[in-house]
Formats: sequence, C-alpha cells, structure tokens
Amino acid sequence: MTDDDLRWRLGARFPGHDYRIFRTHFVEAENPRTGTSKRFSLIESVDWVNVIALTTDDRVVLVRQYRAGVDRVCLEIPGGMVDAGETARAAGIRELREETGYTGGTWQELGTSSPNPAIQSNRLITMLAVGVERTEDPEPDEGEVIEVETATLPDVQHKLRTGEIDHALVIVAFGHLAFRVGNLRAI
Amino acid sequence: MTDDDLRWRLGARFPGHDYRIFRTHFVEAENPRTGTSKRFSLIESVDWVNVIALTTDDRVVLVRQYRAGVDRVCLEIPGGMVDAGETARAAGIRELREETGYTGGTWQELGTSSPNPAIQSNRLITMLAVGVERTEDPEPDEGEVIEVETATLPDVQHKLRTGEIDHALVIVAFGHLAFRVGNLRAI
Repeated sequence: MTDDDLRWRLGARFPGHDYRIFRTHFVEAENPRTGTSKRFSLIESVDWVNVIALTTDDRVVLVRQYRAGVDRVCLEIPGGMVDAGETARAAGIRELREETGYTGGTWQELGTSSPNPAIQSNRLITMLAVGVERTEDPEPDEGEVIEVETATLPDVQHKLRTGEIDHALVIVAFGHLAFRVGNLRAI
Repeated sequence: MTDDDLRWRLGARFPGHDYRIFRTHFVEAENPRTGTSKRFSLIESVDWVNVIALTTDDRVVLVRQYRAGVDRVCLEIPGGMVDAGETARAAGIRELREETGYTGGTWQELGTSSPNPAIQSNRLITMLAVGVERTEDPEPDEGEVIEVETATLPDVQHKLRTGEIDHALVIVAFGHLAFRVGNLRAI
C-alpha cells in the first residue's frame, strides 16, 4: 500500500476547549479501507524548542523544575514555547538566557520531531549550542521556579540510562545527538 | 535549593473534559517562592508502550500509519495503550502481534519515560524484543490501517538522522538503545 492508501480523508472540524497552553478540537475522518467514519480528538499548541547547551568547559546546562503533570521535580534541558513570529533558533537563545543566564555559543539545529503525531500537530525543534557562558542572571517567567546546574556529557548519559532524566523530549534531544555520533548496532 | 523548595503545593482539582483517549482536568497550585496561585491544565491518559522488535535476521519491525494530529503517514515502531490490569510487557507483546503478526523473541524493558511531564501524568514504557518472527496475520484494531515493513538498524539510524522517522516517542525508544551502546562525547 502507498501512503495515499493509508491516508484518512479529513472532513468537518469542530472546536473543542481552550486551555490557554493548548486547545482541543475534533475532526471527522473517513477510514480509507472501510469507508467508515471516526471522530479524532486533537490537541493544538504552538511549536516547542529545547536546547542542548554545552559550556566553554564542555558541560551540559541543565534545569531542575517542578512539573505538575507528574507532580514532581524533573531534571531537564532548557526549552519552552516558540512565540508567534519567532524562529526556533531565536526561541532557543531566549529560553536559554531567561531560564539559565547562559548566552553566546555557536548554534545549529540538531533535529525536529513531532511530540505526539497521533493527537498533536505541533513540532519540537532541538537546538545544539556549543560554547555558551553564564553572563547574566536568569530571568524566568513569572510562575517558573528553576534551579540551574551543569553536568558532563558522560554524567548526562548515565542519568539517561538510569532514568534520572526521564522527560521524553529531553531524551529526544540527546537521541538526536546520539544518532549522529553513535552506532545502534552493538546490542 | 532542594527539590522540596522547587515543589508547588497542589490544591483543589476540577474535572475538565473527556475525549475518550484522554481526559483533561485542572489543579490549583501554589508557587513555592512567591505563594501566588496558578491553575494548571493537565491531560490524563493511560500508560503507553512501544517496542523495538528485532527479527531473527536482525531487522527492525516498523509500522506505517496515518496520524491525524500531523495529518500524514508516519513511520513508527509498534505500540499502543497499556490496558487496565495489563503489564507493559504483556501490552507490548499484544501490540506487536496485533499490529504486525510478529511473535516470540526475548523481551526486556529498555527504558521508561514521561511523554510530557508538564501536562501529562502517564508513562511510556519501551520494550526491546530480540528474535521475533512473523507467525500470524496482523489483527489491527478496528480503525487502524497499518502497513508493516522491516529495516536494518543502520537504515533506521539513517532515517532517525534525516527525520524520515520523526515521531518523538519512537526517537525516545532508539535513544534508550543508543544511550546503552553509544557515546555522546564525540560531538
């Protein structure tokens, strides 16, 4: 089967509810194989950015913050929402500065992913910044309570293996890094 | 600051809306630094499982299916929801069989992650199955239209690097694999 044979035909859309950081809506769709209809529930939000920032002494900039979904403190990399009219790179530079006070470095896009293609339309862009320095005090958004720390890449890899870092979108960021440099064959 | 200094104090919970595959709710929380209140919007769903299944001839079992969130066909690994009372391992074995017809192999848990700790409480468990074989016809759920294919691990790694595979939770699965065998240092 081609991708076109797998594609459902979308029909009418209906608004759901507005939760400010995301909105829901519904869309009618027709099964390409059976012709039967199904209503998908979808979540809309802006694109997200996250940043693997390596300091001039080769340490990863990490943030520790409370996350209400899991009701505990998570160890993460800096990131947030891409504002309207903002590029992902600009959003990454802004989030890194606001959350951690680190600036500068050489920036490149490491990878782009779909956080949950089944129900979300938005994208996550992961940036890599090499050679950042702490030049300012953090200025977190009102409502953000963030602790900044750094770790070496081998330490981060250990935390990813043990599950101390378990935020899927942080795993995605380091996955993009690993797929460039690693080798998945050696199971 | 300790994690306890970062933790918001949760208060009253209010139900949101039921979308069948997920539900929303709201929770009042108090900022530990300022004492001000904020209402978080949260998404509840069951836990998810996905499976890196390697065939007896060392190929990865992949599924191609339409995803309404992004309105296109995605290349993924098998997976789905963990049913009530079911272990993640049993759910992985079931999803692999239903979606692809592959069974058997030696199973282990590769890693557990939080798909979106800011707004979701659920967990994703990634399983690794080594030595599976195609023994049955797939029996996808009503409403699933799935094409099964296989690829070598180097091919999968190439697709992860180029973005042909861009489903974040699939990247998470291969990230878990890479963190075991790879080395993040060689940027």
